[in-house]
Amino acid sequence: MFDQKMAQKAAESLRRVRERRPLVHNITNYVVMNYTANALLACGASPVMAHAAEEVEEMVSLAGALVLNIGTLSPPWIEAMLKAGKRANALHIPVILDPVGAGATRLRTGSARRLIDGISIQVIRGNASEIFSLAGEKSGSRTKGVDSIHTVDQVAETAIVLAKELQTTLAITGVVDLVTDGERICRVMNGHEMMSYVTGTGCTATVIIGAFLSVCPNPLEAATTGLSYFGLAGEKAAVKGFGPGSFQIALLDALYGMNEEELRIGAKIKV
Amino acid sequence: MFDQKMAQKAAESLRRVRERRPLVHNITNYVVMNYTANALLACGASPVMAHAAEEVEEMVSLAGALVLNIGTLSPPWIEAMLKAGKRANALHIPVILDPVGAGATRLRTGSARRLIDGISIQVIRGNASEIFSLAGEKSGSRTKGVDSIHTVDQVAETAIVLAKELQTTLAITGVVDLVTDGERICRVMNGHEMMSYVTGTGCTATVIIGAFLSVCPNPLEAATTGLSYFGLAGEKAAVKGFGPGSFQIALLDALYGMNEEELRIGAKIKV
Amino acid sequence: MFDQKMAQKAAESLRRVRERRPLVHNITNYVVMNYTANALLACGASPVMAHAAEEVEEMVSLAGALVLNIGTLSPPWIEAMLKAGKRANALHIPVILDPVGAGATRLRTGSARRLIDGISIQVIRGNASEIFSLAGEKSGSRTKGVDSIHTVDQVAETAIVLAKELQTTLAITGVVDLVTDGERICRVMNGHEMMSYVTGTGCTATVIIGAFLSVCPNPLEAATTGLSYFGLAGEKAAVKGFGPGSFQIALLDALYGMNEEELRIGAKIKV
Repeated sequence: MFDQKMAQKAAESLRRVRERRPLVHNITNYVVMNYTANALLACGASPVMAHAAEEVEEMVSLAGALVLNIGTLSPPWIEAMLKAGKRANALHIPVILDPVGAGATRLRTGSARRLIDGISIQVIRGNASEIFSLAGEKSGSRTKGVDSIHTVDQVAETAIVLAKELQTTLAITGVVDLVTDGERICRVMNGHEMMSYVTGTGCTATVIIGAFLSVCPNPLEAATTGLSYFGLAGEKAAVKGFGPGSFQIALLDALYGMNEEELRIGAKIKV
Repeated sequence: MFDQKMAQKAAESLRRVRERRPLVHNITNYVVMNYTANALLACGASPVMAHAAEEVEEMVSLAGALVLNIGTLSPPWIEAMLKAGKRANALHIPVILDPVGAGATRLRTGSARRLIDGISIQVIRGNASEIFSLAGEKSGSRTKGVDSIHTVDQVAETAIVLAKELQTTLAITGVVDLVTDGERICRVMNGHEMMSYVTGTGCTATVIIGAFLSVCPNPLEAATTGLSYFGLAGEKAAVKGFGPGSFQIALLDALYGMNEEELRIGAKIKV
Repeated sequence: MFDQKMAQKAAESLRRVRERRPLVHNITNYVVMNYTANALLACGASPVMAHAAEEVEEMVSLAGALVLNIGTLSPPWIEAMLKAGKRANALHIPVILDPVGAGATRLRTGSARRLIDGISIQVIRGNASEIFSLAGEKSGSRTKGVDSIHTVDQVAETAIVLAKELQTTLAITGVVDLVTDGERICRVMNGHEMMSYVTGTGCTATVIIGAFLSVCPNPLEAATTGLSYFGLAGEKAAVKGFGPGSFQIALLDALYGMNEEELRIGAKIKV
């Protein structure tokens, strides 16, 4: 029923992250810095947070992946993201963007567009309204009025068009996660509703994709398998956590404790 | 013994927060951003943190309440708070101020005063020394030398005068919380001493008041019932948490898990 | 086998922190602000985070110790650190530096050097590669190529030379912690490997040293006993925490729950 090959790839990527302990450079928001750093450590990667324009180029050159997150953005941070992203591109280090709140304010939508225009980004992870706010004129008409009542199929169709237009891989998270590079589309059924009661679970999904991307060169596969691992950890945590406080702690424990065999068996991916 | 009407209102406000999931816009300090966001999610509200002058006016216009907290302030943040506060006033969105550390440095005391002078603020939440440091010349002589040896009655009397002078509602938290709009005064006996061993519990009380204020237009009632809900969650958490680490997690669980009936029965409010 | 006098001093310092509740002023990184504030509260101290150049001199004058941490540095923060450090020096308030990431970028190495050149610093806490990146021309040749393959003895020898050169006390944390003031050297065997799976445990060790230094004027003793207390809390937490999430919470509980007698018996210090 679920894709065995992708499940196998998820397990392999997790193993590689733990073997190589890739450095993931984050220019991210204040709210989630601590939690995403802990999530990266829990999955086996090594986090660094650095945002000063004076050092981001040097720092990213040491990294296996660069995560850009505009959750509490201000103009100097966007400049640092552009600098870091361009250096990452030059060094062929993958870049992941989390356009937190795109669509809510012009600063966020405009900054996300500037990053997309100025940097080659391998994966963009967001919810449907954030992702579709990135549409330009070409796909814009399709994405007008996007909200939660859209069916998964409508979202999928639109996502494929937008991924082609933006020349990137889109990871749209929700009850079912959709990942598309404009050609293929994958669905990830892992996850738990309690995740929406913990701040920064979306941002955490993004950094996990970053860790996977640093050991798996295919963006579609890295995003799909990373989301499956993170969602499965959420399922495991929900068994132990009785509220959002204990759940967020159990989620870190589950990221750390999950072995590759569990992930291979528990991954719910459809290609 | 305790006020039944207020207890009923507490339960109703909690129900409304969970039904409407109000967006609470926070311009707050770095230390508590993650915890207060999680507390807002746990109680049923929806948090957003945004501080850039370029976007705060747009962001606040989407919100049900605006929380201003000067815990790790710097001059650009104060300007953003003024901008957001003025827009909130224009749109009749309630504003809550947490003057963290007012009285400790001139920057903090002066910034809190600037916010109070420039914005119509519905509730100010702080401890006694923070609140009384806000006194101007009129009530200043009364508040000189305020410290922990003052009796609750002396604090109450001074608070009423100051609330009138500042034309706002003051929520002074301590072993017993006092809330006054300059006319009426309420006392909240909920809470637990372990709360003082977790950073940002005061700031968290403030955001809970923000959530309640977005669904309850009366500042005195919103502050009183919000503090009662938060304090009761602390009492419940103390049963489970054996130290400040597990307590802070249990507190999020308790905010999430408390049902309206429990709050109606457990609220310890005197009017 | 372990030093009884130092163990006794550890217990005494912990008692004094709890009696006096010293204010520890932190100018630190965004990632760990919440956790280190909670760790300071858990051990009995009182944390304040303040970074604005406009207020750091006033704030530090109220404090028992100043902690400078360059984990997410930017130029304005370094200026504030210099200002606060100079005022602390003038008032004989001890200063502790955590040169996070020194050696990784020129901004970090250079900023750490500027702080060391501009301020009299009582203790510098870091891992071996951070500490040895601070070497100037004199000791520089000895520290080239420092990495994890160095034996503890080689590190110790080099640390003594560097501490003399920098005229400070160095606390080099790792599997075994080394503390030297250039004359004496202490080794701390407390700790647990799970600590490396929680972000900011190094930064937390630094603030604990800060709390101890505010009640114990000897930097070598304050750093040694502070690290022993923190490491022993890690050992206790590891019994309860089954993953890095629950471990980080149990660590706060252990800092809070440890009594002085436990510390006296459990301290593993060699002089």
